[in-house]
Amino acid sequence: MKVSARNQLPGKVTKIEQGMILVEITIELDGGGELVSVITKGAVENLGLAVGKKVYAVVKSTEVMVATD
Amino acid sequence: MKVSARNQLPGKVTKIEQGMILVEITIELDGGGELVSVITKGAVENLGLAVGKKVYAVVKSTEVMVATD
Amino acid sequence: MKVSARNQLPGKVTKIEQGMILVEITIELDGGGELVSVITKGAVENLGLAVGKKVYAVVKSTEVMVATD
Amino acid sequence: MKVSARNQLPGKVTKIEQGMILVEITIELDGGGELVSVITKGAVENLGLAVGKKVYAVVKSTEVMVATD
Amino acid sequence: MKVSARNQLPGKVTKIEQGMILVEITIELDGGGELVSVITKGAVENLGLAVGKKVYAVVKSTEVMVATD
Amino acid sequence: MKVSARNQLPGKVTKIEQGMILVEITIELDGGGELVSVITKGAVENLGLAVGKKVYAVVKSTEVMVATD
Repeated sequence: MKVSARNQLPGKVTKIEQGMILVEITIELDGGGELVSVITKGAVENLGLAVGKKVYAVVKSTEVMVATD
Repeated sequence: MKVSARNQLPGKVTKIEQGMILVEITIELDGGGELVSVITKGAVENLGLAVGKKVYAVVKSTEVMVATD
Repeated sequence: MKVSARNQLPGKVTKIEQGMILVEITIELDGGGELVSVITKGAVENLGLAVGKKVYAVVKSTEVMVATD
Repeated sequence: MKVSARNQLPGKVTKIEQGMILVEITIELDGGGELVSVITKGAVENLGLAVGKKVYAVVKSTEVMVATD
Repeated sequence: MKVSARNQLPGKVTKIEQGMILVEITIELDGGGELVSVITKGAVENLGLAVGKKVYAVVKSTEVMVATD
Repeated sequence: MKVSARNQLPGKVTKIEQGMILVEITIELDGGGELVSVITKGAVENLGLAVGKKVYAVVKSTEVMVATD
């Protein structure tokens, strides 16, 4: 499957924190830096996510803001 | 101002494409890789965005999905 | 690629309306009913979208609201 | 109340899973297929949601992505 | 229709700026302050929006960030 | 830091409800009215949020819908 979301950054799962409905996934980007994602427990199971797994952080461009110092 | 959005990746504006209401900003991340952001023309003016400017790409963690190959 | 977004409804593109930055895609769902999506022109080109093409409408579950009469 | 969100698909609640702050609602669409929604516990109470209740799944068009096989 | 989005602030449309696909609506809140909304042209027509019209600005709680000075 | 999100309403935290991953923050707006925000526990700690604290509710304009009676 190829998805329209323009931002698809490769990385590796470094932490998984379980809630009751949602799960917080920390992804270390291949280029350096980290991204935090919150997805459902069902999605974590569907993808078989585990610490160390190679993944992409995917973000729709209308969800990306810009900030300046 | 300090904002709750967990993801704030440093980079540099490399392209600005103007629409009538919205503007597409391409950001080259310091760590490598690119992010595309779509924000309003008003926001671009408020921040004084221009090609070459140092910025942060900011994303709320509930907006980050995870994908696998 | 397999993406975490829980909602992936199969359908067919029935209309494409071009803006300068964004494009409005109308999708007739296989199960009946229509969905409207707004994505970037770049995404439309990446996916080679055209009227008649089989696609999935993909939505992160935190973006789905519920309403009652 | 009439809301601007372009996507309002009729269906029926088939499952409710409670978290501490958020609740996962599964909706069987009238046209076939399922949608998963994550909303606050407060919203579930405001709407009096329960399994079997007729509802609409509501999604803003800028939140709908498109994917291809 | 009653929608799950927890934030529904009453106000009045004070400005409408047309793009090709999207429209920027400025809403003066009854309590003071302004909100800017970007919705599709189709939604503006469905709701019959015009300057001066009484409306609600509606936001899902997972889309609200918090910032400090 | 100055962020592109067009909507930044000043207020005061009046309630904090803890989940395992996410936290629900109620903000009383200076202009009157309330907003509910759901952010991660990590964000609450980063900002040192507590009841009584002066904050801004921040919303990207593409996340604001419009409704009519």
